Amino acid sequence: MDPYGLRRVVSPPGALPQRAEVLDPRLPPGEDELLLDVEALNVDAASFHQIRTAAGGDPARIAGEIARIVRERGKLHNPVTGSGGMLIGRVREVGPRHPAAGRLSPGDRVASLVSLTLTPLLLERIDAVRPEVDRVECRGTAVLFASGLWARLPEDLPERLVLAALDVCGAPALVARHARPGMQVLVLGAGKSGSLVCAQAMESLGGRGRVVVADRAPEALEALRRLGICHAAVAVDATGAAAALPALMAAGGPYDLVVSCTSVPGTEMAAILPAADGGTVIFFSMATSFTAAALGAEGVGKDALLVIGNGYVPGHAELTLGLLRRHPALRAHFEERHAR
Amino acid sequence: MDPYGLRRVVSPPGALPQRAEVLDPRLPPGEDELLLDVEALNVDAASFHQIRTAAGGDPARIAGEIARIVRERGKLHNPVTGSGGMLIGRVREVGPRHPAAGRLSPGDRVASLVSLTLTPLLLERIDAVRPEVDRVECRGTAVLFASGLWARLPEDLPERLVLAALDVCGAPALVARHARPGMQVLVLGAGKSGSLVCAQAMESLGGRGRVVVADRAPEALEALRRLGICHAAVAVDATGAAAALPALMAAGGPYDLVVSCTSVPGTEMAAILPAADGGTVIFFSMATSFTAAALGAEGVGKDALLVIGNGYVPGHAELTLGLLRRHPALRAHFEERHAR
Repeated sequence: MDPYGLRRVVSPPGALPQRAEVLDPRLPPGEDELLLDVEALNVDAASFHQIRTAAGGDPARIAGEIARIVRERGKLHNPVTGSGGMLIGRVREVGPRHPAAGRLSPGDRVASLVSLTLTPLLLERIDAVRPEVDRVECRGTAVLFASGLWARLPEDLPERLVLAALDVCGAPALVARHARPGMQVLVLGAGKSGSLVCAQAMESLGGRGRVVVADRAPEALEALRRLGICHAAVAVDATGAAAALPALMAAGGPYDLVVSCTSVPGTEMAAILPAADGGTVIFFSMATSFTAAALGAEGVGKDALLVIGNGYVPGHAELTLGLLRRHPALRAHFEERHAR
Repeated sequence: MDPYGLRRVVSPPGALPQRAEVLDPRLPPGEDELLLDVEALNVDAASFHQIRTAAGGDPARIAGEIARIVRERGKLHNPVTGSGGMLIGRVREVGPRHPAAGRLSPGDRVASLVSLTLTPLLLERIDAVRPEVDRVECRGTAVLFASGLWARLPEDLPERLVLAALDVCGAPALVARHARPGMQVLVLGAGKSGSLVCAQAMESLGGRGRVVVADRAPEALEALRRLGICHAAVAVDATGAAAALPALMAAGGPYDLVVSCTSVPGTEMAAILPAADGGTVIFFSMATSFTAAALGAEGVGKDALLVIGNGYVPGHAELTLGLLRRHPALRAHFEERHAR
């Protein structure tokens, strides 16, 4: 038994798959592994942003870069951002000692709920790159270890919607644990995870408190305002914390809970400065710098609990799909913007 | 008024000092600034480890590298690790609008409690490098902004001890907030912050629960065991999480609270894997990778609160010096190993 997939680590020896430089996706499947035929990759926003920028926005060059990373590393682990994404596919083989044995059968459609940074992946071809939704349609095979989470694709929701939502399902689920009625909540980023976090925060506040969302894109803010999932929307560039601070504070600060859902580097202080003393800041952005957050908070004497957004919270997939089922307008917005 | 020191940022424009590439330490002091004559730098452990390794352990080359960073950046902000350290010095000038006006006078000896990554610093000369305690004795000037924390050096404790202890005082203070009687606590790293964290955890547990410390250096473990600030000590290499896990678990896992005080990269999973479901992992190591922690926990389906060790907790300096005052043996150990 090899619940963490150690036998697939090529280098460095003894590393866990997430930390490994190179994995071997070609080994025959182990008896506690799940083998999938991959159909699409949803690339992490920070990773896709970096690859798209480096490729000058050209889909063919984006595809080339993704193929190169997977060929060299045996996984889609962006060496610049350190982040991955997730995938959907059909079950090809369920090892007899995998926890899903008896619950999944060949042909079932599932999404992986663990990062592509630790998922052995072999790409045969890339069929299409969809930069507008950070997605790559492809053919290949991937392996999930016994400890790797997955979700069966529900029948009542379109697959692209499910894939896009599950990619960030840890964010609203963790916010549901931290948001309480009466809180002032600030969400940085009105994109994929930001919109789900706003909707969850509105529910968790139960009518008492305030949800403020900030983004540099006015149209994204306007969309969330129309959906009624925020009390205020502020157009600021979060990479310039000092310049952004007055507008963020005027909208309802200081904030008991700040949730960073940006996809660009350098937004740590825009999350930390507006937090209330004794407040909590949760970082979901994969572009977050550990030292910038730790030393930045200390540097300005801010007593806030700084949380690394753990992508796993029990029940996160169902919580997120439930949000979309309960909010048809949010679902339509999400499909239009993040799941085309 | 410029509480965050924006006017000293040379590049990039609009950045806060911690994120800046370059600061200007030569500007005349502002009326809300505190100007210090620097006497010593305590370099962050991860930063010093990196510089020492790059310099082949040679004190002259270490000094040269530190001088180069400060000359180029106007601050001791290690470009590889992203971390800094802190300093002590004498007050040269207190701006009339600085919060310390009336409380500090020229000649008073103080320690900075904000990172060197955001402290404008001009070095005139480096007198000595002490690799065994990550310290540099030097002459120069530094600036603290109105938001920058400082502590007056107490008269009952030696200055080197105080400097070494204040450098990591956020760690025991944050642990005091999270450790509760009855908990199983694991501390990774038996060094400077690790020993203080062990001592604080023992106090916070109040006789119920268990403190386990792990390090790759048996002599450091033996010292903490002799001090009575742990219930068990485990010799493991935390960079190999899979190999270390059985010994960590056998010593008292799963752990309600894991505190990472290592100074080397790649120890995130050794902190995450032994945590109990629903437990908390606090990362103080400046070598922590945000993505490795976030994606690593998700990758193994670990439901733990992942906390970035904020260097500021109200009362952290007094709490830490109080620990040393109450534990003469710990103080002697700390002076011997970290404050020579």
